[in-house]
Amino acid sequence: MKPVISLMPRMAVASAFVLAAITVTVKPVSQSVSQSWQPPADAQRCPSKWGPEDQRGSANHMKPEAVLRATKLIRTGEVIEIGHTLNSQMPFFGTRRFDVHTKRTFMNPQSNRRGSNEELVVSEIGQVGTQFDGFAHQTIGDSMYNCFKVSESATRNGFEKLGVEKVGALFTRGALIDVAGLKGVKILPDNYEITARDIEQALERQNMKLEKGDAVIIHTGWGELWAKDNDRYARGCPGIGVGAAEWLVARDPMLVGADNISVEVNPNPDPKVSLPIHQIMLVVNGIHLLENLKLDELAAKRVYEFAFIMQPLKIQGGTGSTVAPIAVR
Amino acid sequence: MKPVISLMPRMAVASAFVLAAITVTVKPVSQSVSQSWQPPADAQRCPSKWGPEDQRGSANHMKPEAVLRATKLIRTGEVIEIGHTLNSQMPFFGTRRFDVHTKRTFMNPQSNRRGSNEELVVSEIGQVGTQFDGFAHQTIGDSMYNCFKVSESATRNGFEKLGVEKVGALFTRGALIDVAGLKGVKILPDNYEITARDIEQALERQNMKLEKGDAVIIHTGWGELWAKDNDRYARGCPGIGVGAAEWLVARDPMLVGADNISVEVNPNPDPKVSLPIHQIMLVVNGIHLLENLKLDELAAKRVYEFAFIMQPLKIQGGTGSTVAPIAVR
Amino acid sequence: MKPVISLMPRMAVASAFVLAAITVTVKPVSQSVSQSWQPPADAQRCPSKWGPEDQRGSANHMKPEAVLRATKLIRTGEVIEIGHTLNSQMPFFGTRRFDVHTKRTFMNPQSNRRGSNEELVVSEIGQVGTQFDGFAHQTIGDSMYNCFKVSESATRNGFEKLGVEKVGALFTRGALIDVAGLKGVKILPDNYEITARDIEQALERQNMKLEKGDAVIIHTGWGELWAKDNDRYARGCPGIGVGAAEWLVARDPMLVGADNISVEVNPNPDPKVSLPIHQIMLVVNGIHLLENLKLDELAAKRVYEFAFIMQPLKIQGGTGSTVAPIAVR
Amino acid sequence: MKPVISLMPRMAVASAFVLAAITVTVKPVSQSVSQSWQPPADAQRCPSKWGPEDQRGSANHMKPEAVLRATKLIRTGEVIEIGHTLNSQMPFFGTRRFDVHTKRTFMNPQSNRRGSNEELVVSEIGQVGTQFDGFAHQTIGDSMYNCFKVSESATRNGFEKLGVEKVGALFTRGALIDVAGLKGVKILPDNYEITARDIEQALERQNMKLEKGDAVIIHTGWGELWAKDNDRYARGCPGIGVGAAEWLVARDPMLVGADNISVEVNPNPDPKVSLPIHQIMLVVNGIHLLENLKLDELAAKRVYEFAFIMQPLKIQGGTGSTVAPIAVR
Repeated sequence: MKPVISLMPRMAVASAFVLAAITVTVKPVSQSVSQSWQPPADAQRCPSKWGPEDQRGSANHMKPEAVLRATKLIRTGEVIEIGHTLNSQMPFFGTRRFDVHTKRTFMNPQSNRRGSNEELVVSEIGQVGTQFDGFAHQTIGDSMYNCFKVSESATRNGFEKLGVEKVGALFTRGALIDVAGLKGVKILPDNYEITARDIEQALERQNMKLEKGDAVIIHTGWGELWAKDNDRYARGCPGIGVGAAEWLVARDPMLVGADNISVEVNPNPDPKVSLPIHQIMLVVNGIHLLENLKLDELAAKRVYEFAFIMQPLKIQGGTGSTVAPIAVR
Repeated sequence: MKPVISLMPRMAVASAFVLAAITVTVKPVSQSVSQSWQPPADAQRCPSKWGPEDQRGSANHMKPEAVLRATKLIRTGEVIEIGHTLNSQMPFFGTRRFDVHTKRTFMNPQSNRRGSNEELVVSEIGQVGTQFDGFAHQTIGDSMYNCFKVSESATRNGFEKLGVEKVGALFTRGALIDVAGLKGVKILPDNYEITARDIEQALERQNMKLEKGDAVIIHTGWGELWAKDNDRYARGCPGIGVGAAEWLVARDPMLVGADNISVEVNPNPDPKVSLPIHQIMLVVNGIHLLENLKLDELAAKRVYEFAFIMQPLKIQGGTGSTVAPIAVR
Repeated sequence: MKPVISLMPRMAVASAFVLAAITVTVKPVSQSVSQSWQPPADAQRCPSKWGPEDQRGSANHMKPEAVLRATKLIRTGEVIEIGHTLNSQMPFFGTRRFDVHTKRTFMNPQSNRRGSNEELVVSEIGQVGTQFDGFAHQTIGDSMYNCFKVSESATRNGFEKLGVEKVGALFTRGALIDVAGLKGVKILPDNYEITARDIEQALERQNMKLEKGDAVIIHTGWGELWAKDNDRYARGCPGIGVGAAEWLVARDPMLVGADNISVEVNPNPDPKVSLPIHQIMLVVNGIHLLENLKLDELAAKRVYEFAFIMQPLKIQGGTGSTVAPIAVR
Repeated sequence: MKPVISLMPRMAVASAFVLAAITVTVKPVSQSVSQSWQPPADAQRCPSKWGPEDQRGSANHMKPEAVLRATKLIRTGEVIEIGHTLNSQMPFFGTRRFDVHTKRTFMNPQSNRRGSNEELVVSEIGQVGTQFDGFAHQTIGDSMYNCFKVSESATRNGFEKLGVEKVGALFTRGALIDVAGLKGVKILPDNYEITARDIEQALERQNMKLEKGDAVIIHTGWGELWAKDNDRYARGCPGIGVGAAEWLVARDPMLVGADNISVEVNPNPDPKVSLPIHQIMLVVNGIHLLENLKLDELAAKRVYEFAFIMQPLKIQGGTGSTVAPIAVR
C-alpha cells in the first residue's frame, strides 16, 4: 500500500461549495464534545422486528405489492444499467481481487470442430464491483443481524445463517436522492457527511417522498472517479452519516445504495468508530446496503423514481454478491 | 472420473412413454443414413443479420418495446425464481468448480467492534449453476459469432470481442414450453431428442404462440435431478435436436433456455457431432443459451407466459455468467 | 461425500498377519478401561525446551554437524526421490484441491517469436501431496507450539508466528523404520496402530539405532494405495499410536515422517480423541511431521540409513509446505 | 501500471564503472549494424543432443557422479539458503500473484480440542519467487525444446510433454560467478549486458574453472532491490547477453541461474528480440534457468564453489517451480 496523500485542493472545492464545507467543519467539533456512536447491546436490538428467526430483514419488503407498485413506474420501457463492468481496472477495497483467467480453448474431436472457452474467476465475488451487502458481511463483535453469532454460523465454506442466497431478487420502487445535484456540484467533497437535512432538502427539491420498502439510492457523484482515480475512489468517500442513517432507517426501506464504496461517509468524522452505518444498517436494523452504483445516467436524466430490479447471485452462505442492477422507467 | 454406467431401468421409463421411445429408436437409424450436421462456412454465415460489427446478436431484441410487452404480463406481482442456489452440491460439467472460502473474520480496532466477513470464490463463474452463455463460449474451429476469431480476440484475461459484458440486462416476454407436460411425464427420458413437432404440439396444448424476441424456456423435467443425482444430471440430458433448433431459430428469439445442462439433447444422437445446437445458436445465429434453469415451480403452476428478467454479470471479456433470473407475472 | 464403507475383507488380511491382528484386537480393550489421552495444559508444556521465543522446534537440530553426519552417508551418489508427483489424481484430505490451470500461450510481438507459458495453481499447497507440517497447522484449543496463540498470530494471509518459512532446508541423517517389512506384509492392515515395541523390533531387525536429530521415516506400505485406491488411502491408515509417538519424542528427532496421510494411526483407536499424535508432535513437543512419503523404492532397496534432504517452500506465515524430499546414499 | 521512469542517476553509476559503461555504449551500435539474433529452425536444433525423445535436457547431467563431485565440496556443513521467502511483498512479473488465504480454524469436536489450520494459495506457483524454469515455459513459435509442439502437448491442466515433474532433484557442483564483484560494484547498472569476457575475467579473478554439469550461478547484485524497490527490480535487469549465453552453452552446465528476474539482460539491447537467452537456453539447448536467487550471503562470504541442491516441486505438466535451493559447503 502506498502512502495515502490527498492531492485534492480542498479549499478550491470548498469555495465552490460553501454550505457543505461549513457543515464539514462544524461537525467534528460537536462530535468531539459528544460521545462516540455506540453499537446497541444484543438485548436492545434482538429479536428483529421481523421475528426472532428472521434472516431476510429488509428483503421481507419484497412482496407482490412492491412489485406492482414498481411496475406502475414502467412507462417507456427504458432500461438504465446502474452496475459497473467487472474488470481488473476497478477500484478495489484492500487486497480484494477480480482475476479472470481465460482457459485454453478446448477443441472437441468430433467433425463439427466445436471449440469451447471458459474462464476461471478468482475473486471476492460477493464484495467487488457494484455490490450488494448481505447480513453475514458485518458484525458487532461476534454478533450479526438478529443476534446470529459468527462463531456458531461461520464455516470454512459459507455461513449457515444469513447467507445472501436467502435474499432473492429485489423488485421495488427505486428512489434516487440526488445530493450532489442539491449542492450544485458534480462530486461531493471528499469525506463529506450527508446529513438528514441534506436528504430532506434533496427530496423536497425533487418534489418526492420516500415510501416504505423503497430502494433508496443516493447520488454523491463519487462514481465519476471510478476507474479514473482509483486511489482517491477507494481511500474514502462522501456519504451518509449517523444522523442520515437513522433518518433513513425510520423510513423502513428495502435497501440503501450509493455511488461510492461504502454508502456511508468514509472515514467517519468520528475517528473512534469504523463505518458505523454498516452496523446501523446491516447488523442493528437488518437493512441491506448496495455499493459502487453507477448513477451518472440516472442523475443526468433526472430519473428520480423508477422500477428498481436486482438479482443477487444465490451464493449459499455468502456475505454478499456483485450485482448488475437496473432502473426501468 | 468414475466409469459412467446408467443404472436407470430404461424400459420402465419407456413403458410410460411409448411414443417418445419410438422416436428415440427411429431417429438414429435415419441419421445413420443421412449426413451428419455440418457447420456452415464463414462466408455462408457472416456477416450476421445484425451487421458485420455486431457483438450482441439476439440481445439486440432488448429494446423498450420488449420491456413494455413483458411488463404487461405482470398482473399479480408474483416473482418466481428460476435460478438454482450456488453451492458445492451442484452438478458440475467436467472439472468446473464453485469453491467458496470464507475468510477469517477481520475485527477492526475501533470502539464499535465492527467485524468484517468476506469470501474468496474460485470458480468458472461464467459457466456454473444456472448459466447464461455468451458468444465467446463456443466456436467453429477458430471462428466465433459474426466470424470474430478466437486467435485474434482471446487474451489471458478475457476476450476483446463478444464479451458477456456487452449483453446487459434482458427483460422480455418469457414463454415456457412444457415438453415434459406434453408427454405426460415428470422427466423426459435420458437423451430424448425434442423435435420441432414436440414444440409445436406443446405450444398448441398450451394455446400459445411464440413471438419474436421471446425468452423461450423449455421444460424437460431434467431439473428434478439437480443436486439429487448429479452423476446422471451431468452426463447427458434430454433436449432439443437440430430440427427443433432450426425451428426455433426461425422464430427469432432473444434466447433459448432449459432446465438441463446443455439446452440441447446430450450427447447428440449423431455421434459424429458434438453439441451442434451450441454452434447453431451461439456461433451461426447469435442466439444466447440459458442452461440449468429451475423450472419446477413455473411448470407446476402452469405459468406459460411471464415477464422474464435476467441480469448477467458484466464480466469484461467473459464467456458467460452464472445468473439468478426471475419470472414475474 | 459418499458414505464410507470398508470393502476390505479384514479377516483375510488378519489371517496373513496374526501378531498384528492380535495387537489390534487387544489395544482397544485396554484403552476402553484407561483414560483417553489428554493434551497437557499450557503451563505444563511451555516454554519449549528450545526457549520461550522459539518458533523452530525440532528444526533447531539443523546444524552443520547434522549436515556432516548425513554427508558421510553419501557413498554412491544415488538419489532416491521420496516425494509423489503433484497432480489431480492424488488422494486429497477433505475438500483440499490441487488445480493447475495452464494459461493461454502468450506470444511476444518481437521477431524471435518467443511464446510464454505459465500456469495458475489453486491449492492448499502447504497441505497436499507429500507434505511437511509446520507448527501453525495444529492447535490445542487456541494454543499452538510454545503456546503461541492462534487468536494473536493468525491473519487473513498467514501467521505472524510459527510460519513454515522459519524452518529452512533440512539436511540430516534419515532413518527408515520398515514396520511393514518387520511384519512381513506389503501393507499394514487398515487402522493398524504401530507400537513402540514394533519400532524397537524393526530397528533391531535392521540392526540400527536412532540418533538425536534424525529424520525418522516409517514405512507402513500404505503408499501402495496412492493414486490407485484414493478412497481407502484417504479415509484412514495404519500409523503410530500414542505409545510409539512418546517413544519417538524421547529420541529427539528432527522430524517424523511416513508413507500415509497422517503419520499416525487414523482414526485413533480411542474414538474420543482426534489425531492426538499431531498434537503430541507439533503442539506439545515441537516436532515436525512429514506425510504422504513415497517409500516403495527405499524399502525395496533396504536403504535404512541415508542423507535426508528436504526444502520446504518458504511460504511466509504458512502452515506447511508440499515438498519433494530426497534420500541420498 | 504506472508509467515507468528511471530515477537512477546513470552517469553516477557509470563513473564508478567506466569499462562496463563503454561496453554498454558500444554494443548497440554494432548490433544496429549486424543482424538481430534469429532462433534456429526446428531442423537445425532437433533432435536434441540428448536424443529425440528426451524431455530432461541439461537435467540429464544429474547422475551419481555429479552428486559425488558435489558432496566432496561439503566440508563444514554450512548451509546457505539461496531462495527468497514467498510473500506478497515480492516483485512480480506482470500480473502474477502469490496470494495466501489462511482458512478459518477448524475445531474438531473431540475431547482433545484439536484445531486445524491450512491456507489456500492462489499463485502462478511455477513462476514466482526464486523460480526454476522448465522447458514448457518457453517456445519458438509453436515449438519447444526438442521440437515438442505446444499445440500437441498443452492441455488445460498441464503439458503432456516437458513437464517440470520430469526434472527431479538437482544436486551438483555449484559455481558462483561474481560479476558485480569483478566490476567492483554492489549492483551492476540497469540493463547492463554481461559478456563472455566478463565471465572469463570473473572466473579468472576467482581462480576457478567451470565444469560440465555445473549449476552456474551469476551474481549481478540486482537482488539487493528485492522487496525494496520492486518497480525497478521487475522492469528490467542486468544479465547475460547472447554472447555470454553461447559461451555458457559451450560449457554444458546443468543450469544457469542469477539473482535477477530473467538471468539475461532485460530488455535485450537489441529491441527487435524479446528475451533471446530464454530461447537459447530453454528451447534451443535444453538448459534450465533459475531466476530470482538470493545471492548476497554467498557473494559476501565468497563461496564460489559449493554443493548446489534444489528440489523443484513435481507439478505434473508444470512449466516451472518456485524453489528453495541451498548451497552447502
